[in-house]
Amino acid sequence: MADILPVSPLAPEGGFPDLPAIPGVRFAATAAGIKYKGRTDVMLVELAPGTTIAGTFTSSKTRGAPVLDCQGKIGMPSDAGAAFVVNSGNANAFTGVAGVNAVKAVAKAAADATGIPEARVFTSSTGVIGEPLPHDRITATLAALVDGLDKHGIADAARAIMTTDTFPKGAGRTVEVDGNRICVAGIAKGSGMIAPDMATMLAYIFTDARISQDKLQSLVAAACDETFNRITVDSDTSTSDTLLVAATGASGVGMDGSSAFAAALAEVMDDLARQIVCDGEGASKFVTVSVTGAATDSDARQVAFAIANSPLVKTAIAGEDPNWGRVVMAVGKSGAEADRDRLSIRFGDVLVAKDGSVAPGYLEAEAARHMSGENVSVSVDLGLGVGTATVYTCDLTSRYIAINADYRS
Amino acid sequence: MADILPVSPLAPEGGFPDLPAIPGVRFAATAAGIKYKGRTDVMLVELAPGTTIAGTFTSSKTRGAPVLDCQGKIGMPSDAGAAFVVNSGNANAFTGVAGVNAVKAVAKAAADATGIPEARVFTSSTGVIGEPLPHDRITATLAALVDGLDKHGIADAARAIMTTDTFPKGAGRTVEVDGNRICVAGIAKGSGMIAPDMATMLAYIFTDARISQDKLQSLVAAACDETFNRITVDSDTSTSDTLLVAATGASGVGMDGSSAFAAALAEVMDDLARQIVCDGEGASKFVTVSVTGAATDSDARQVAFAIANSPLVKTAIAGEDPNWGRVVMAVGKSGAEADRDRLSIRFGDVLVAKDGSVAPGYLEAEAARHMSGENVSVSVDLGLGVGTATVYTCDLTSRYIAINADYRS
Repeated sequence: MADILPVSPLAPEGGFPDLPAIPGVRFAATAAGIKYKGRTDVMLVELAPGTTIAGTFTSSKTRGAPVLDCQGKIGMPSDAGAAFVVNSGNANAFTGVAGVNAVKAVAKAAADATGIPEARVFTSSTGVIGEPLPHDRITATLAALVDGLDKHGIADAARAIMTTDTFPKGAGRTVEVDGNRICVAGIAKGSGMIAPDMATMLAYIFTDARISQDKLQSLVAAACDETFNRITVDSDTSTSDTLLVAATGASGVGMDGSSAFAAALAEVMDDLARQIVCDGEGASKFVTVSVTGAATDSDARQVAFAIANSPLVKTAIAGEDPNWGRVVMAVGKSGAEADRDRLSIRFGDVLVAKDGSVAPGYLEAEAARHMSGENVSVSVDLGLGVGTATVYTCDLTSRYIAINADYRS
Repeated sequence: MADILPVSPLAPEGGFPDLPAIPGVRFAATAAGIKYKGRTDVMLVELAPGTTIAGTFTSSKTRGAPVLDCQGKIGMPSDAGAAFVVNSGNANAFTGVAGVNAVKAVAKAAADATGIPEARVFTSSTGVIGEPLPHDRITATLAALVDGLDKHGIADAARAIMTTDTFPKGAGRTVEVDGNRICVAGIAKGSGMIAPDMATMLAYIFTDARISQDKLQSLVAAACDETFNRITVDSDTSTSDTLLVAATGASGVGMDGSSAFAAALAEVMDDLARQIVCDGEGASKFVTVSVTGAATDSDARQVAFAIANSPLVKTAIAGEDPNWGRVVMAVGKSGAEADRDRLSIRFGDVLVAKDGSVAPGYLEAEAARHMSGENVSVSVDLGLGVGTATVYTCDLTSRYIAINADYRS
């Protein structure tokens, strides 16, 4: 499906970014024929000895076998190298014992082909749920993948993990600390079944920083909460979603205490998270929902997600209709503390409602002008306290229906 | 909008039912020109002295002025008659002090026109949120409405309260208790912004039973939890929704202890709730989601709503695709206790998944045959306990988007 969908109108201009090669990281991609025809669907990443790996995973109670396997392996100390093997087209989720065995088969074959211990091979699968993974098609490609490993292969890797994505997603930053240059580069996939509660997508981020596993894990968890856990396309949470961050240490520069490194990592995560929203299935507008004045940050987040997940708000935005009544509705249903008569709402800079009714002098034409752009912002002040939250989403169009009513056929 | 939408394919065959006249209840409807052209938009119901009234209301924190007014009046003892005044086209919600004054103006004018105390005039408004209600257009029609009161006017009343509904909704039952015949008849509106947490719609039910307010309220609350609170179209909860049940006592037959009456009332509520789902915006299929084997009833309900509200499940149903992987996903994201390896899933009678993977001998063609019908059932057994829940919803089609991206224009 991915290869016949037109590219999202919200895709970054200029295409896939020019990312720096990360010392200690090599990529390969191939077409294993798992489901798609005429495109790549497996990526292999090889990581140098000494790499530390952190990760966060879906909170789904029905998470797939690869996720459970990664969770078991994360945090186990090792000086060995590591590998990521990721396929698209099949999620290997809800596949019972066969699913567990498929993960083992892929990890073992990758270990054999790369010389990396099986306990350091992390696999992910994304695509259709509930169908057995034809893992032999993956293992059959591993020797050739190893032969093809290339430190400049990140763009090809990003393409191989796409499902209904319409463009490959990559982001990078470099940071200078005490005269040393550290690079961070990441890729991600995701366009449907995207909702918070960790990383409802796949993302892999690489850096040559030297950093302890504990420290990396805590940086990743904190940044995840402000990036991947702040996006929603359709409120549906995947069974498979995975973020892995690998620090090769090849720069030799320790980054455990660097706020500049933490910021660069968070920026890459934020960039990838926004790109996932920009590729939201059927999306025609990027929507920023900001909530201020809530009793607590948690209330603010609850209100922001109620707005961002409301089909009526999302369809109004698709229709370029400044229908702020639906925003009021979403605030009301969120369950968070709210006082109708203290509420104010803006579309862009246009104050549409204030103190429980339409704002004096409000002109719908001005709000409609804002709605007609590609970037729409909905800001709600609850007038109660200092809690704030920002969430990113996209509009809900008939293309979402077309894509999802016909995904498997 | 309502008058140009084609009638839902799920509308009851035979049109609006032939409902019994309820002694003590008279109806009138008129076109006040609140928003719609060329159709009725106000209904008046007159209830005889001695009528007891029960009600349940939206749980929204941003509920409209008419809802707050009704909530204040419900349960106040009175032997006087009562009146319901309901308009469509404007919800009089998030309209500040003007909204409160509009309710008072309509209630006072109705009291003057009918001779019923203002404290016994219940008003509802449904339609666009956030625009001032032109209440003078309603009050201007009241004298004519009173003149037109007719005990056979229930069908016209049902039409006057429609918004994006494509058919008027009515249901009735008669019950014989100790040789006495008691009638129950109700009407409802609703097709979008429909989600549980009470009655996200308007519904008015009438009976000639004699019953105390306390008892009626407890019957209504209990039945509501099993009927109107078990439906969802789009997970969006309205600011305005209201169920009022009026027992005129005109039969002279006391029903406080009658389980037959309680059952008839619940049946009417269930019938109306299902009709609202059948008129779900853009609906092409009626979907029954049944969950069994949950740890608790509350968990079962949480899983059932996670499935019924999932855009990915609903679009798969629209596409007649037995994509049970999305059902697994919805179970996983629900937050309820679940064990992937005990889960089984059926579409209709077809067992598609069992014990955490595809069922032995499962043929997708059989499940697809079930999906191609107008009535689709999704049954999930969690294999954990004895908790059960059933929820009704509809599929999500591109017509939902078309209706809602363009509602105000």
